[in-house]
Amino acid sequence: MQRNDMVLGIDIGATETAFGFVDGHGKILTTAVMPTMADRPAEDFLSRLKIQIDALGKPLPEGFQLRGIGLGAPNAHPRRGTIENPVNLKWGAVVHLKSLLQAYYNLPIALTNDASTAAIGEKMFGSARSMKDFMVVTLGTGLGCGLVLNDRLHYGVSGFAGELGHTTVDPEGRQCHCGKRGCLEAYVSASGLIRTALEMLALRNDPSRLRALKIVEITAKRIFELASKGDAIALSAFDQTARILGMKLADAVAHISPEAIFLTGGLASAGDLLIDPTARYLDEFLFSVYRGTVKIAPSGLPAGTGAVLGASALIWNELKS
Amino acid sequence: MQRNDMVLGIDIGATETAFGFVDGHGKILTTAVMPTMADRPAEDFLSRLKIQIDALGKPLPEGFQLRGIGLGAPNAHPRRGTIENPVNLKWGAVVHLKSLLQAYYNLPIALTNDASTAAIGEKMFGSARSMKDFMVVTLGTGLGCGLVLNDRLHYGVSGFAGELGHTTVDPEGRQCHCGKRGCLEAYVSASGLIRTALEMLALRNDPSRLRALKIVEITAKRIFELASKGDAIALSAFDQTARILGMKLADAVAHISPEAIFLTGGLASAGDLLIDPTARYLDEFLFSVYRGTVKIAPSGLPAGTGAVLGASALIWNELKS
Repeated sequence: MQRNDMVLGIDIGATETAFGFVDGHGKILTTAVMPTMADRPAEDFLSRLKIQIDALGKPLPEGFQLRGIGLGAPNAHPRRGTIENPVNLKWGAVVHLKSLLQAYYNLPIALTNDASTAAIGEKMFGSARSMKDFMVVTLGTGLGCGLVLNDRLHYGVSGFAGELGHTTVDPEGRQCHCGKRGCLEAYVSASGLIRTALEMLALRNDPSRLRALKIVEITAKRIFELASKGDAIALSAFDQTARILGMKLADAVAHISPEAIFLTGGLASAGDLLIDPTARYLDEFLFSVYRGTVKIAPSGLPAGTGAVLGASALIWNELKS
Repeated sequence: MQRNDMVLGIDIGATETAFGFVDGHGKILTTAVMPTMADRPAEDFLSRLKIQIDALGKPLPEGFQLRGIGLGAPNAHPRRGTIENPVNLKWGAVVHLKSLLQAYYNLPIALTNDASTAAIGEKMFGSARSMKDFMVVTLGTGLGCGLVLNDRLHYGVSGFAGELGHTTVDPEGRQCHCGKRGCLEAYVSASGLIRTALEMLALRNDPSRLRALKIVEITAKRIFELASKGDAIALSAFDQTARILGMKLADAVAHISPEAIFLTGGLASAGDLLIDPTARYLDEFLFSVYRGTVKIAPSGLPAGTGAVLGASALIWNELKS
């Protein structure tokens, strides 16, 4: 790596796509965001992205060399270079995103899903620099998980290892959008929190400010604000969310025995309302041999730019090894 | 490896200890069994074992060279060389088994738990020779799991990764001997099957030959025999066991995405009564991206000698790498 080498990190979301130039120390040189426009074809997306990237690169000082591109995207397959059946992008069943991008850039390109970029970002630029076995759980609209095992991103034979959002909490439980029932994501996610609050409003008689709202007005953010003010239903909804998450993370520890579990994403920003009780419930559910071997912590990457950093870490990791 | 090199594989169980000399192709040259006498100290066990091993080695042809010793034992810690808090061995909290054995044999020695020896045995001498990611689930008195990830035994930071027997099926469920509630092992194991049969006898009114037995006479073997003859309660007990196992193995696939899951141990010998329905339920519970990527199969190691082969594979694997 030369002093002026840099990579491009791109995080494709259903609504927005963030991208930026990042140096080998994880310093973001410049960054921007554009609307994904998920209902248009992938080719349209890429030609718009190319124009934006060129514009973003212009003000960079002379001498910077672009060495590669890292991408985080939903349903990305790291080995096939594809995006497959993304729920929130109308790009068709299989898009060869890597080849499409290589038509613009003759550079090393790597892609994977956003939970795996979060994990490799944590390893290179965050709180997991010295760790060989850890996991990052992303808590947003859904629940994702990136795994680093024995110092490497773990993908398994399918390329999709880590879909903990679709492990089973209750086989007779809530409908999940994936077609199964009782998936973790249907309980522990922004929408899962809302469903838990609704369930509690049905089960209990406590007064709650939530009762004054239209159902569609109840958001995770609203529940967070009310919980922070002491609303009993909102507090219980967080506690129940933490209990289910703690229970399923104890299962995850029994599988892989990580040194740490990092939480990131919108719901993780609830901080003490979620992370502390999750750690307590995890300890309760842990099998004795694992007690004291694993910690829960918020991600060490900055909240706003973590996704671009993670995507850049993906390609830095390949370039450096 | 020389043509006449061999290793010693030892499998320590609560009742019996099996051991044998094994060559580099997984051929057992000679093997024997002795009572473990689990209520006596570890030192006593080892001095008896030494005498038995010497006797076993006597008839071997001239020229065989012992290169190392592999051990499988309950609660063995692969990195510390210890047996820690074994439930069924009265050896105290921590026994430094590796050092104790090295007093007799100045050779490379490796130890781990029996599920991990089963996994490395499957890799070297069984059905997983070409696989990089797979798991072996041992179904006996308890439920254990050995993991090979990215071509290596996976132990995690604790050294104890793979204790799937203590993942949670139902947080308000059956008492587990580990002190927690609703552990997988309390449902899917020889004793779990018995408890499921009892529960069904309580819930349902079907006639069953089980109703004529004393509770203490109901064994997994008896339930198997009755299920084979079409007893409705016994059949349902197996079906329920397979459903819970399938559900939790779908969780395991979401964590590590293995190419195969091998089942071994007493309960796995129930064959079609357990393995086929487990495969069906697994498929039902699998998240879509994993469908068709993982198979369930019985272990490819011979039933009687698999444990000794696995223990020998553990040390062969170290000697060859």
